[in-house]
Amino acid sequence: MIRTILWADDAVVLIDQKALPGKVHYLTFTDWRDVVGAIRDLTVRGAPAIGVAAAMGIALGALQLPEASVPETRRTFARLCEAFAKARPTARNLFWAIERMQRRFDETLPAGIAEVKKALVGEAVAIGEEDVEINRRIGLNGKAFIRDGDNILTHCNAGALATAGYGTALGVIRAAREEGKKLHVFVDETRPVLQGARLTCWELVHDRIPATLITDSMAGFLMAQGKVDRVIVGADRIAANGDTANKIGTYSLAVLAKEHGVPFYVAAPLSTIDRSVADGSGIPIEERNGGEVRELHGVRTAPGKVGVYNPAFDVTPQRYITAIITEAGVAKRPFGASLRKLFQA
Amino acid sequence: MIRTILWADDAVVLIDQKALPGKVHYLTFTDWRDVVGAIRDLTVRGAPAIGVAAAMGIALGALQLPEASVPETRRTFARLCEAFAKARPTARNLFWAIERMQRRFDETLPAGIAEVKKALVGEAVAIGEEDVEINRRIGLNGKAFIRDGDNILTHCNAGALATAGYGTALGVIRAAREEGKKLHVFVDETRPVLQGARLTCWELVHDRIPATLITDSMAGFLMAQGKVDRVIVGADRIAANGDTANKIGTYSLAVLAKEHGVPFYVAAPLSTIDRSVADGSGIPIEERNGGEVRELHGVRTAPGKVGVYNPAFDVTPQRYITAIITEAGVAKRPFGASLRKLFQA
Repeated sequence: MIRTILWADDAVVLIDQKALPGKVHYLTFTDWRDVVGAIRDLTVRGAPAIGVAAAMGIALGALQLPEASVPETRRTFARLCEAFAKARPTARNLFWAIERMQRRFDETLPAGIAEVKKALVGEAVAIGEEDVEINRRIGLNGKAFIRDGDNILTHCNAGALATAGYGTALGVIRAAREEGKKLHVFVDETRPVLQGARLTCWELVHDRIPATLITDSMAGFLMAQGKVDRVIVGADRIAANGDTANKIGTYSLAVLAKEHGVPFYVAAPLSTIDRSVADGSGIPIEERNGGEVRELHGVRTAPGKVGVYNPAFDVTPQRYITAIITEAGVAKRPFGASLRKLFQA
Repeated sequence: MIRTILWADDAVVLIDQKALPGKVHYLTFTDWRDVVGAIRDLTVRGAPAIGVAAAMGIALGALQLPEASVPETRRTFARLCEAFAKARPTARNLFWAIERMQRRFDETLPAGIAEVKKALVGEAVAIGEEDVEINRRIGLNGKAFIRDGDNILTHCNAGALATAGYGTALGVIRAAREEGKKLHVFVDETRPVLQGARLTCWELVHDRIPATLITDSMAGFLMAQGKVDRVIVGADRIAANGDTANKIGTYSLAVLAKEHGVPFYVAAPLSTIDRSVADGSGIPIEERNGGEVRELHGVRTAPGKVGVYNPAFDVTPQRYITAIITEAGVAKRPFGASLRKLFQA
């Protein structure tokens, strides 16, 4: 199994996603500040993976907490969490992981700093292990939506590399394969950062799942030709009503899927759902550097003087979504009530 | 004015579109076979520009016709035309230009080979000059559709570089600017060959028209935010019923435009309209090498083992099109009757 994030010998080990698919190598981080940098520069990306990396980064920071007064330790830990919270704005899992580490900190601080360190390392490792288990349950819950012989379109990377392992959208695809279904995956290359071309294709080739790479602009033409049976994507943040923020281009795909009567599924853990946000309009959308659009691997593709708009995500209103597949079950319309039930279960 | 194709001293001179925007330089062709190669490898591209380049390439070939019998000269000329006809399959203008050169050949052959050479050079030069004039008329006919303050989205390059000069879709934008309208253009980068990022942005920067580059996947999100007032694109071949083949991704844009109530215009000369094809299903769609998708400027972006689907064009059914703007006037629904009237006028 592809492992994206590991805790080893008081260090965080990340597969270098910027180097894939050209090189498969792991980077070892012993300073929490470098983990913040790795989240920011997309060495690690994908909402669940960002959550796990942040938890492990916070554990790394906690190991460096000096013996100090309780208020001083609280302030130091708050600054540590704040640095991670500022790394990227959209993925809900980042904040979910920080909140979970904060709670564990609060619980164990009375027992002393040594206990805090042990507990936070344990919590971060648990978050990583649970993530793989959650993805397997998402796969089990979602595989019934995939029929034998399906052509499935996916966007960006919601695979092992976007999580601690196994994947959300690709987890559903893996689970369907594991029960013997034949299927074929169309992969949007996902400009500007090419997570589809670089990461999803690499995972599918790795697992010998038949796959065809297309540019993002080809999805509509494929659907018009009846070549796409369903679309399945991951999510970075899901509002209480089911509106879903995911990699830029997801919304266009959802509109195209609706126009062609193609079912459109979102696969994500409950930790991606932000019940504090009523609908998609409340989800902050990260805008990244224009260089991502103007260049590719350092090769300039457009005149330097042209303006660039580079939102990293878009919001797909819930009315375009057929179902949201989580580890606790499948949410359907009306999503507000359906998602609430999953949290109660 | 940007000049794309020139006839000079018995040679064809082409701006090297593969080198733009990094380098602005012109290539001089004295062998017709190299002009076929330049069409095939996208040194020159864009339906009207391909037509002009083919006409000039055929003139270049005609200059090399040896003194021979009439049947032998006919056979040699037919082989010359056939080589150009095989260069690319979708753009109607290529075949239109070849047919026009063939007619001129047939008219002048009785007068002798010297007369043929003079006539074909004259015809090719005329096709180039007429193309600029036609584009100016398209601009005049289309500019009323642009309102002061509009944000216009375009795809690929339907500008000066796609024609002998001035452009079709960008011709409409230029004409609107020339009458003093303020406007701003969103440019789809247009993967895989990046004609939007490389060529359209270069033209707009050159003409100081405010422009913002986006990836193809961002168009839907822009429309959802109400940031796009209209879409205008060119065409490679228009069927008798108005169905339009254009650069891959155009169809997705048209579906998105419909979903958001954004008018969707096609600007093209009559020479792009193929009255022998009843609807879009009869238009041949070129599939190009997978390397265009797997690589960018020689930089590998995906694993070598993954399959690639690379259609260069798609077909937008006429029901998504608001109007087709030609040099002879504007066609509206029902397009079949409306286009017929333009040919009669």
